Amino acid sequence: MPENLLQNINSPKDLRQIPEKDLPQLARELRDFIIDIVSVKEGHLGASLGVIELTIALHYVFNTPEDLLVWDVGHQAYGHKILTGRKDNFDTNRQLGGISGFPKRDESEFDTFGVGHSSTAISAALGMAIASNLNGNFDKNHIAVVGDASIASGMAFEGLNHAGVTDANLLVILNDNAIGIDPSVGALKNYLTSVKEGKNPRQNNMIKSLNFDYSGPIDGHDIFAVIKELQRLKKTKGPKFLHIITTKGKGLEQAEKDQVKYHAPGKFDKLTGEIIVKSEENLPPKFQDVFGLTLLELAEKNEKIVGITPAMPSGSSLKFMMDAFPKRAFDVGIAEQHAVTLSAGMATQGMIVYCNIYSTFLQRAYDQVIHDVALQNLPVIFCLDRAGLVGEDGATHHGVFDLAYLRCIPNMIIYSPMNEIDLRNILYTAQLGLNHPVAIRYPRGRGEIVHWKKPFEKIEIGKAKLLKKGSRIAILSNGFIGTNVIPALAQINNPHDFAHYDFPFVKPLDETLLHEIFSNFENIITLENGTIKGGFGSSILEFASSNGYSIPIKVLGIPDAFIEHGTIEELQNYSKIDAESLKIIFESY
Amino acid sequence: MPENLLQNINSPKDLRQIPEKDLPQLARELRDFIIDIVSVKEGHLGASLGVIELTIALHYVFNTPEDLLVWDVGHQAYGHKILTGRKDNFDTNRQLGGISGFPKRDESEFDTFGVGHSSTAISAALGMAIASNLNGNFDKNHIAVVGDASIASGMAFEGLNHAGVTDANLLVILNDNAIGIDPSVGALKNYLTSVKEGKNPRQNNMIKSLNFDYSGPIDGHDIFAVIKELQRLKKTKGPKFLHIITTKGKGLEQAEKDQVKYHAPGKFDKLTGEIIVKSEENLPPKFQDVFGLTLLELAEKNEKIVGITPAMPSGSSLKFMMDAFPKRAFDVGIAEQHAVTLSAGMATQGMIVYCNIYSTFLQRAYDQVIHDVALQNLPVIFCLDRAGLVGEDGATHHGVFDLAYLRCIPNMIIYSPMNEIDLRNILYTAQLGLNHPVAIRYPRGRGEIVHWKKPFEKIEIGKAKLLKKGSRIAILSNGFIGTNVIPALAQINNPHDFAHYDFPFVKPLDETLLHEIFSNFENIITLENGTIKGGFGSSILEFASSNGYSIPIKVLGIPDAFIEHGTIEELQNYSKIDAESLKIIFESY
Repeated sequence: MPENLLQNINSPKDLRQIPEKDLPQLARELRDFIIDIVSVKEGHLGASLGVIELTIALHYVFNTPEDLLVWDVGHQAYGHKILTGRKDNFDTNRQLGGISGFPKRDESEFDTFGVGHSSTAISAALGMAIASNLNGNFDKNHIAVVGDASIASGMAFEGLNHAGVTDANLLVILNDNAIGIDPSVGALKNYLTSVKEGKNPRQNNMIKSLNFDYSGPIDGHDIFAVIKELQRLKKTKGPKFLHIITTKGKGLEQAEKDQVKYHAPGKFDKLTGEIIVKSEENLPPKFQDVFGLTLLELAEKNEKIVGITPAMPSGSSLKFMMDAFPKRAFDVGIAEQHAVTLSAGMATQGMIVYCNIYSTFLQRAYDQVIHDVALQNLPVIFCLDRAGLVGEDGATHHGVFDLAYLRCIPNMIIYSPMNEIDLRNILYTAQLGLNHPVAIRYPRGRGEIVHWKKPFEKIEIGKAKLLKKGSRIAILSNGFIGTNVIPALAQINNPHDFAHYDFPFVKPLDETLLHEIFSNFENIITLENGTIKGGFGSSILEFASSNGYSIPIKVLGIPDAFIEHGTIEELQNYSKIDAESLKIIFESY
Repeated sequence: MPENLLQNINSPKDLRQIPEKDLPQLARELRDFIIDIVSVKEGHLGASLGVIELTIALHYVFNTPEDLLVWDVGHQAYGHKILTGRKDNFDTNRQLGGISGFPKRDESEFDTFGVGHSSTAISAALGMAIASNLNGNFDKNHIAVVGDASIASGMAFEGLNHAGVTDANLLVILNDNAIGIDPSVGALKNYLTSVKEGKNPRQNNMIKSLNFDYSGPIDGHDIFAVIKELQRLKKTKGPKFLHIITTKGKGLEQAEKDQVKYHAPGKFDKLTGEIIVKSEENLPPKFQDVFGLTLLELAEKNEKIVGITPAMPSGSSLKFMMDAFPKRAFDVGIAEQHAVTLSAGMATQGMIVYCNIYSTFLQRAYDQVIHDVALQNLPVIFCLDRAGLVGEDGATHHGVFDLAYLRCIPNMIIYSPMNEIDLRNILYTAQLGLNHPVAIRYPRGRGEIVHWKKPFEKIEIGKAKLLKKGSRIAILSNGFIGTNVIPALAQINNPHDFAHYDFPFVKPLDETLLHEIFSNFENIITLENGTIKGGFGSSILEFASSNGYSIPIKVLGIPDAFIEHGTIEELQNYSKIDAESLKIIFESY
């Protein structure tokens, strides 16, 4: 057996020096390298393990970075990063100042397009391919690697539909492992399964209907077969489609068996694969579980309740309801647009619809929120998980724009719970009938209240409340970020100067209380886990302006820049909304 | 021949009394009725003429409104409106206080879902169908009528992909006339054409791949054939798909011949079909033509320039460039998401991309603007036509949210030209290289400058300018709506009190000039053709707050409500941003 191959690879040029026969060994080494580091440093595991052979084959056959390779989503790009010059700092993955968990243009010339959200790769690679033709580079190759969950999203279809009528040198590789973060769903998935099982002869081929040169399905772990097919496709002009079958988590037994858990398993034993379980006893719950478990409770009592998630049953904890009421809880796949309008359609028939979408992904369905829900004033209940800074997933995933982009929409109610009990109670209140759409935004991670399963209480819409009295300065916080105010005030010399109010409703605002506050304080400070441009603070400025108040108002929130990855605490500190930064700001008053 | 049939039809119940053999006569009467009124009152013509037989057949066969019928987009729903109780006020179509040009829930129980933007019908009808099953209504029918341009949009695919794995009683009717507003494009369109031409045997059927019971294609003008097939499908459970072939503009010779022009022809001679041409001599140009013609000029000089439109070559006037440079100007179909990310992909390869999307439709690609363009700081040039209030198309189409939803995105430049020359010059300036994405938003309709083709001048990014001096009150207007300030000031007693500034850049703001203004005036008034929540005025409030200014600021713009249809003048008046309203506001100072 030759010496360790990976240690000598610093770029695909080095890779291309290795004899083809040794590539299976390299695949083993690359898997081990990823497992070694991810087992300790955490990150996304299963997707990258599944495409090791494909990753090697792509860089082996194609002339990257001249040939342009776009990974869809990017969970699967660890092997790519390691082979393209980031082996030595791969252990900084997803850490503040370290490399990103996703391909990122300013990190490497091999990362041709930044990704994170799904289904963008075909459009991006097609744009590159058309540009190459216009630039006279007719021999350049453009490759989009897309998973079977991502390709079912509407945006991917739009890209295929356009590509099929071009002469662009586009190769779409479908990495079909029958799973995204959760198992894939939908009619296309069933169709792909039937293709795999040989039930659909090639002449009945959906992809060919879209004018692609289709090949496959082939075994994506047979590196020689993959290389051979890529070499053939490299010589074929125009839009091409290669269907490969892979196993998510390939090479780590437990990861192959429990693909959902090993998508991003946290720390694990690299030899046994065993996940290192942290005790959750006496920990406050994750907000997502407060959502999932409360919804289950409510659904048990009210049969009009339905739940919808676009491909995040585990991540949103809608799975609790899906297990208990499979006919009333729907995973619609990566289809945020459809999820929202489906919700609207159900709401017209009297269903009480909880549509759970991560804040960052609701951006995908912005028009549907405006046009199909709010304009018709349908009482859809949007549950926006991962609102605010999300931590290690970084710039693509922070849910920091929602307050600004939702606040301008008429008819919307926007609520940010300050804690688990508030979240529980607003979920309860929403099904009593609000006669308006409501967006409930709550953060990633855990809250602070261990015993959160209290009897339900109805929340009064548009009401804010005093948390702490004070004499001169009123702090108005929105949602869970308000909990940072408490330790900050505990550390300053003049805490009695500061009153603290919880303003969970960004819309409608509690104008009665605002009048009282603006009449009694010298200074206002607003605090939110969202962009300072156009968000909660802005709504307070608008209130002050339209009511003729001229007290100084300081708006604290996410600055006008894309925030990178790091822990939530680090990023809150960067944004000056952590307790320590707040303390310094408060002291300056 | 029986007497006039239409005059006795006030609801589908009446329709169902008519013997089937007389329905072709009713079809003729319904066509004549639409032509009579639209020839005088204007509106959308071709789409409704194309589905007359289908419309009659649907209400004849199905038990509307118990059976739920959703029209996609709604341009084609005039016949539906006339047969469902709105015959007598059909002449108020699209007028202030009159019926809407689109189906609208609060107008009629037969309008089950409000539409306007495309490709929502499948998701909405599927939501209704699933709800019916949950409600125990297993015999209810749910029908989505979708055009071939709309069905190629990703959202429609998402709906089909989900529907195919349900047991929902959903009938999708593909109204295939090979055209949307402009001729349909894309691989799916080619596939559908091949099906029509009998080149694709039924076993190679894309729709069947998605698990639908497919039937067709049938002649959509053969009312007996359509009725027969609908009767069969009414008895079939589960997801079904009927492919019918129609001719847009059917029954009016010119409308059949020139389908693009007769989509919404304005006034025409109802007998000859001849469009009544208004002289355009000495009229200022439409802003869309300033875009289209200027882009053509620029493209002639710079071969890196490309143009992209999602299905609006005529409406955006990109057609000028498409005719001259067909390889560099792309109609990608109704695919806003793809259009934006395609633009991003092209921009990575050094192309200068003008991506033209109506403001209201950019809502469809909001995530792509954030995630694929702004986050990577790619210098895509977004040309947002129909920004602000658009008039007769009404609530679904006003482009009033863009300032709010774009302003929170880092890296964006946002510019609203005050006139044709500004638009021309920013288009010129953008291709010189801004190193940032830019959104250029301009209104529907004509400007005020007849001789607008002046030599290009570079616009300084972030600069505002003084238009008129004044002593006490500074009016800061954004874009073309600022022209309303001039007649308003001309009518008041104390015009010398008012200074008027043009702030075309909402981002970056001209902070230097703002400091000067805030230091020298007693009052500030901001004016924009967009939502007061989170828009330009809000950005001025944020500036004032973060710089410690406490001068009163009045924010004028679109109130926090969905604005209905009417002329632009009427709707500006409703929103108190027309010259007359401004005059009254100015007089109060």
